[in-house]
Amino acid sequence: MSKTFQLVGIGNAMVDVLSHCDDAFLAENGVEKGIMQLIDMDRGIALYERIGPATEMSGGSAANTIAGFAHLGGRAAYVGKVKDDQLGRIFVHDLRAQGVRYEVPLAPRSEAQETGRCIVLVTPDGERSMNTYLGVTEHLAPSDIDPAMMADAEWIFLEGYRFDGPESHEAFAKAIGAAKAAGGKVALTLSDPFCIERHHAAFARMIRDDVDLLFANRAEIEAMYGTEMDAALEAAADEVETVVCTESEHGAHIVRGSARVHCPAVPTEVVDATGAGDLFAAGFLWGMVGGHDLETCGMMGNIAASEVISHLGARVEADLIERFRAFGLKV
Amino acid sequence: MSKTFQLVGIGNAMVDVLSHCDDAFLAENGVEKGIMQLIDMDRGIALYERIGPATEMSGGSAANTIAGFAHLGGRAAYVGKVKDDQLGRIFVHDLRAQGVRYEVPLAPRSEAQETGRCIVLVTPDGERSMNTYLGVTEHLAPSDIDPAMMADAEWIFLEGYRFDGPESHEAFAKAIGAAKAAGGKVALTLSDPFCIERHHAAFARMIRDDVDLLFANRAEIEAMYGTEMDAALEAAADEVETVVCTESEHGAHIVRGSARVHCPAVPTEVVDATGAGDLFAAGFLWGMVGGHDLETCGMMGNIAASEVISHLGARVEADLIERFRAFGLKV
Repeated sequence: MSKTFQLVGIGNAMVDVLSHCDDAFLAENGVEKGIMQLIDMDRGIALYERIGPATEMSGGSAANTIAGFAHLGGRAAYVGKVKDDQLGRIFVHDLRAQGVRYEVPLAPRSEAQETGRCIVLVTPDGERSMNTYLGVTEHLAPSDIDPAMMADAEWIFLEGYRFDGPESHEAFAKAIGAAKAAGGKVALTLSDPFCIERHHAAFARMIRDDVDLLFANRAEIEAMYGTEMDAALEAAADEVETVVCTESEHGAHIVRGSARVHCPAVPTEVVDATGAGDLFAAGFLWGMVGGHDLETCGMMGNIAASEVISHLGARVEADLIERFRAFGLKV
Repeated sequence: MSKTFQLVGIGNAMVDVLSHCDDAFLAENGVEKGIMQLIDMDRGIALYERIGPATEMSGGSAANTIAGFAHLGGRAAYVGKVKDDQLGRIFVHDLRAQGVRYEVPLAPRSEAQETGRCIVLVTPDGERSMNTYLGVTEHLAPSDIDPAMMADAEWIFLEGYRFDGPESHEAFAKAIGAAKAAGGKVALTLSDPFCIERHHAAFARMIRDDVDLLFANRAEIEAMYGTEMDAALEAAADEVETVVCTESEHGAHIVRGSARVHCPAVPTEVVDATGAGDLFAAGFLWGMVGGHDLETCGMMGNIAASEVISHLGARVEADLIERFRAFGLKV
């Protein structure tokens, strides 16, 4: 009997606050370009006061993946904590409107912290520099994990960023245990080289013991294995069934056992790189659950990524199935 | 001595909730295409549950005008009510970040109603159908008007939509009295033909007695004067110093006394028509305070409008001064 969910994602539930700026603004305000920095609420308020007019759109790395997977018609759920405030209701709406089943109860209004948000500063080159105030999403705990739901998922998809939350290590363990016991598989995205440095041992243990499908970009897999990309891919492939490494305009490298596939990127004018990796994972996973070969999965990932970087925001807008067909993929 | 403000706008402070849909969705959900409908909170919640993923951006008709005017370097302030909630803080941020002085104190968190929002449904033709839940912005009252600020403005800019708020008639009167007593001038935008029908006598009285510059589109001026556009323009010009009527892709008609100017529209692919009239007014007013002739003012209006309809959202994104120069305008 097929499971209710093809994919259940667990990650940081965030609303993105997107604003344009130049490189000088990043430098003046101590924002490191192209990475994610965790900030506290005071820093968030101070930075927000300095940025220009902004646009608010639902984000969150795994949530972007899950929204893209649901957009493709996949049966998906998402677990991540928001508060019952205006931004929290926006976040839930945008996932549900995409066909995602949203499961974690809203943190009550009495909760002091607000729904998490990420100030995404987009420079003219399309690069994004992320400043994340986690808010209530920091506290995702084992009690937020429903084992029955995890057991009813073909894949669970874990967001590396969540390693920054101490209780989330346990939450991940609980989710993995329930999923694996029911024959489910585990995908992990490494998220960020600095997050890997902060929690290297925990990442290493999970990859070795539990992960079936690993997503990373070049900087992340190199940080994880302490060596350059090709050697890191080999090392990862010794531990994990399928390893996928994206390398921006150089496309995606996929390794499974002795098989190695390279999928060239889809040439695109980059408006906002936010969500590129997330949507790559959405397309790739959708290919996997559909039983496609690795090359097709990689192409689906690249096409999905190219759509999301062509406009502001980290959620897919155009019809991806149509795009898959335009590239000659059988869907 | 020059006044502190070149322009002070008074209107409905709203956050726009922008979502794409097709014409069938509008029909199924009883949304009339291309106009603004007032909805209560229950209808707002029900409609929001049915729409797809959305993007949140600050809006509000006069606020869009004021933001555009400040973007151009004009000295501007805005008066409109929001609550001290997340959307209210977003609204205030986006105006201040554009260089607008924002003046009305936030309604306290204990206030039952929230910051107003407008569900803007954008169909593939770029037309927008607006569903407005006014929230706290409905209650703009005379006590929210600072006479000293109005006296210190070269122009005040009044949003016709605010005629839907009973206390706002008095608020407008107070603002007009203070501005006129100090030699200031009054601009009014008619906003919406249905709003005009609801409050025809009040509009007529204000236009006849107080308005120096009237903005309208074709449907609005025809609703106001009960006759076709050319005759309506003549009738308006008998009452008001300067009358400006936009007619979508047919450009803008400007009448002052016996002078009549037509400014052709700037050809643009329409992505989202939201804010076209608001940004026209921003460009036109900026031309007026800069002492430009009517034709140049109209061109500035058309160029500003063409920018805002080329992307999602009702606030200007590209550098308008650069665009004015590209069209050969001396700025």
